[in-house]
Amino acid sequence: MFRRLVSTASSTSVSNLAIATKQQLYMVDASSPGSVFFLPHGTRIFNKLVHFMKIQQEKHGFTEVISPLMYKKDLWETSGHWDNYADDMFRVESNSGSNKLEAVYGLKPMNCPGHCVIFRRFARSHHELPIRLSDWSSLHRNEPSGALTGLTRVRRFHQDDGHIFCSKSQVGAEIGKTLQLIRLCYSVFGFQKYRMMLSTRPETHIGTVEEWDEAESELQKALDTHAGPENWDIRDKDGAFYGPKIDVLVTDRTGKEHQAATVQLDFQLPQRFQLEYQGERGPETPIMVHRAVFGSVERFMALLMDEYEGKWPFWLSPRQAVIIPVNETHLEYSRGIQEKLGGQQDLDVASSLRDVNYYVDVDFRAETVGLRTKDAIQKGYNYIILVGDREVQSGKVAVRSRDSRKVQTMDIDELQAVFADLEKSYK
Amino acid sequence: MFRRLVSTASSTSVSNLAIATKQQLYMVDASSPGSVFFLPHGTRIFNKLVHFMKIQQEKHGFTEVISPLMYKKDLWETSGHWDNYADDMFRVESNSGSNKLEAVYGLKPMNCPGHCVIFRRFARSHHELPIRLSDWSSLHRNEPSGALTGLTRVRRFHQDDGHIFCSKSQVGAEIGKTLQLIRLCYSVFGFQKYRMMLSTRPETHIGTVEEWDEAESELQKALDTHAGPENWDIRDKDGAFYGPKIDVLVTDRTGKEHQAATVQLDFQLPQRFQLEYQGERGPETPIMVHRAVFGSVERFMALLMDEYEGKWPFWLSPRQAVIIPVNETHLEYSRGIQEKLGGQQDLDVASSLRDVNYYVDVDFRAETVGLRTKDAIQKGYNYIILVGDREVQSGKVAVRSRDSRKVQTMDIDELQAVFADLEKSYK
Repeated sequence: MFRRLVSTASSTSVSNLAIATKQQLYMVDASSPGSVFFLPHGTRIFNKLVHFMKIQQEKHGFTEVISPLMYKKDLWETSGHWDNYADDMFRVESNSGSNKLEAVYGLKPMNCPGHCVIFRRFARSHHELPIRLSDWSSLHRNEPSGALTGLTRVRRFHQDDGHIFCSKSQVGAEIGKTLQLIRLCYSVFGFQKYRMMLSTRPETHIGTVEEWDEAESELQKALDTHAGPENWDIRDKDGAFYGPKIDVLVTDRTGKEHQAATVQLDFQLPQRFQLEYQGERGPETPIMVHRAVFGSVERFMALLMDEYEGKWPFWLSPRQAVIIPVNETHLEYSRGIQEKLGGQQDLDVASSLRDVNYYVDVDFRAETVGLRTKDAIQKGYNYIILVGDREVQSGKVAVRSRDSRKVQTMDIDELQAVFADLEKSYK
Repeated sequence: MFRRLVSTASSTSVSNLAIATKQQLYMVDASSPGSVFFLPHGTRIFNKLVHFMKIQQEKHGFTEVISPLMYKKDLWETSGHWDNYADDMFRVESNSGSNKLEAVYGLKPMNCPGHCVIFRRFARSHHELPIRLSDWSSLHRNEPSGALTGLTRVRRFHQDDGHIFCSKSQVGAEIGKTLQLIRLCYSVFGFQKYRMMLSTRPETHIGTVEEWDEAESELQKALDTHAGPENWDIRDKDGAFYGPKIDVLVTDRTGKEHQAATVQLDFQLPQRFQLEYQGERGPETPIMVHRAVFGSVERFMALLMDEYEGKWPFWLSPRQAVIIPVNETHLEYSRGIQEKLGGQQDLDVASSLRDVNYYVDVDFRAETVGLRTKDAIQKGYNYIILVGDREVQSGKVAVRSRDSRKVQTMDIDELQAVFADLEKSYK
């Protein structure tokens, strides 16, 4: 875990920055270089990605925890970060002598030590394993200010982080399930092509050669099954000293490869934290698997910007539809539709947890329908809803998509069904 | 904003700690005093509260942003925190000489300065106002280690924070909407009784007496309308120097009052950050409203623990149902029901964003049904689902609630409908 679970370094493409600016997705500011401000539309994408991954993780047996962002130096000494990773960490101290902090703290660059603290707190039995913890904490790493760019080289970021505590005999199945989850998620984003790299035992390592051989063989079996023998390669002796790992490289539509998911076996951290569970024949040390499917959510967003070229699929889009009233006599009807699609009706009643709301705006500017339609396409709205006399009289809407000029007339209920279908099928 | 928007100080009741421990909701650890580790079941409650408030805020016209956690000292000088609040803040620095940070940073105790940075970045027009930003960032305040307890006196916490940037003429309506939202949300949690306190112009203040009179009169009108004239009092001259405020005190079922929501008008911060929008007759300075409905999510959770005495309503419960198979021949059928209610079927298909999943466990221990039922009630499961021969043969389940011994036999679909109704009505 001293090797970065997720490297934050990668170039930010020019088109990426142009999209972010045009769509007002995020901004950076001199007051906090390397920490992205997600603007409302960027936050919608970020939150949708998080929501998507949370439900997949839950289905795969993960339970989420919320762990502290800063820990005393002695925790980082136990984990080994203070000796091996100190340069990349931020230090937290009191701001004044009168309210002195009882110790020096480090702002966390990774979640793993905090999860070891949680594991260690309770008496654990083999019946409970595997324990799969997920966490969406802010992580901070001290990157030099000159190197910071966009979403790809940052000081603050978020991972779809997960740690699996399991027995040796469970490693194979857990890795298999992890690769299955990666494949499942990537297919939703249209990434059919990706390569997996297995990094094996380096010269300097902890653990016995037998343990390594066994672990690598489990990883190879899982790779053959879930990636296919032709889709993975070995990086010989390139594993971290504490365990072998798999990196996943995704190819975007331009052919560029991006590092995204990672799966790392760790024999060491459980020893450093003296983790233990009651096995069938006495106390045992669990194995820890570090894994992330997106990797850094920020970087995955940047990858998606390149992949979709700013044309977000409906389910992920921060601008799902815009209503264009032909003139001001159609505004009230348009607002009614906006409220219905956006779930803004009945301010006196609490919205239910399952209410289905879409991101719908009204462009009521006194411009021609043609110009507003062109603008809407430019801004990336997935659907354009036209409202004129005919629509108001019939109680319907005239709808066209971003990518086709064909206009269809339909009821609001029909339109809601179209939207629901798109969302359900991740289109 | 130098007065704490949300005071983190309040006593933690004994029953509260007992519930948290028994139900494994959260833990604290010497590695990070004052920063709570939310365990899986506590995280479920935390996330449900956040989800609940996000959809209400969205309906009320808020858009969420994600803003940095640390900012350079000069931002805190602009905001005035460095002069007035430095003792309560944490300082962030490089951890090593070789990777020196370009400035001293402060870990944010509040979101307001970051939101001013976002407002300031773009040219703003009166057409855009009010702009309502919400934020769920981690906030850090340096409380003395000896004073830290449970969820109520902490160093790291989260607010359902929101800032409204509006014109003077919009203040009344915005305060009214905020009080409406508070009433709406509190009714969901069964808080019928709460008092509102209006703190008025202190001797030392910025802004003209006319501005204050106008603002206080708007607040009074909103209080009369949304709280009722008998439900609010004046704290004379107790406002912050930058604006008047309303505090909301909630009474729990034991009669104890808790400070929760707050609404503060701020004439000052927009000036300090030189915020501006294009009004109808030239540039104007917006007024800023700081508001929170829960206040601190952590403290609101503590309040709910007291209020419900650990008996979470179904919608908020981290343990919604447990299945008790009479013996091991009923285990497979039980697992099938668990997967159906919990949405764990079809691992090869991505779960949809709208899938409805409940928190359902199986207690397959080789204990009597009576003992496992007693245990389930003790652990706070809202529903107990019994599975024996009769159920397996008929494809049904026998269900009882935590609070009634009456057992009802029904189809899984019927049970799902019961659960959906409970959730929809926040029961």
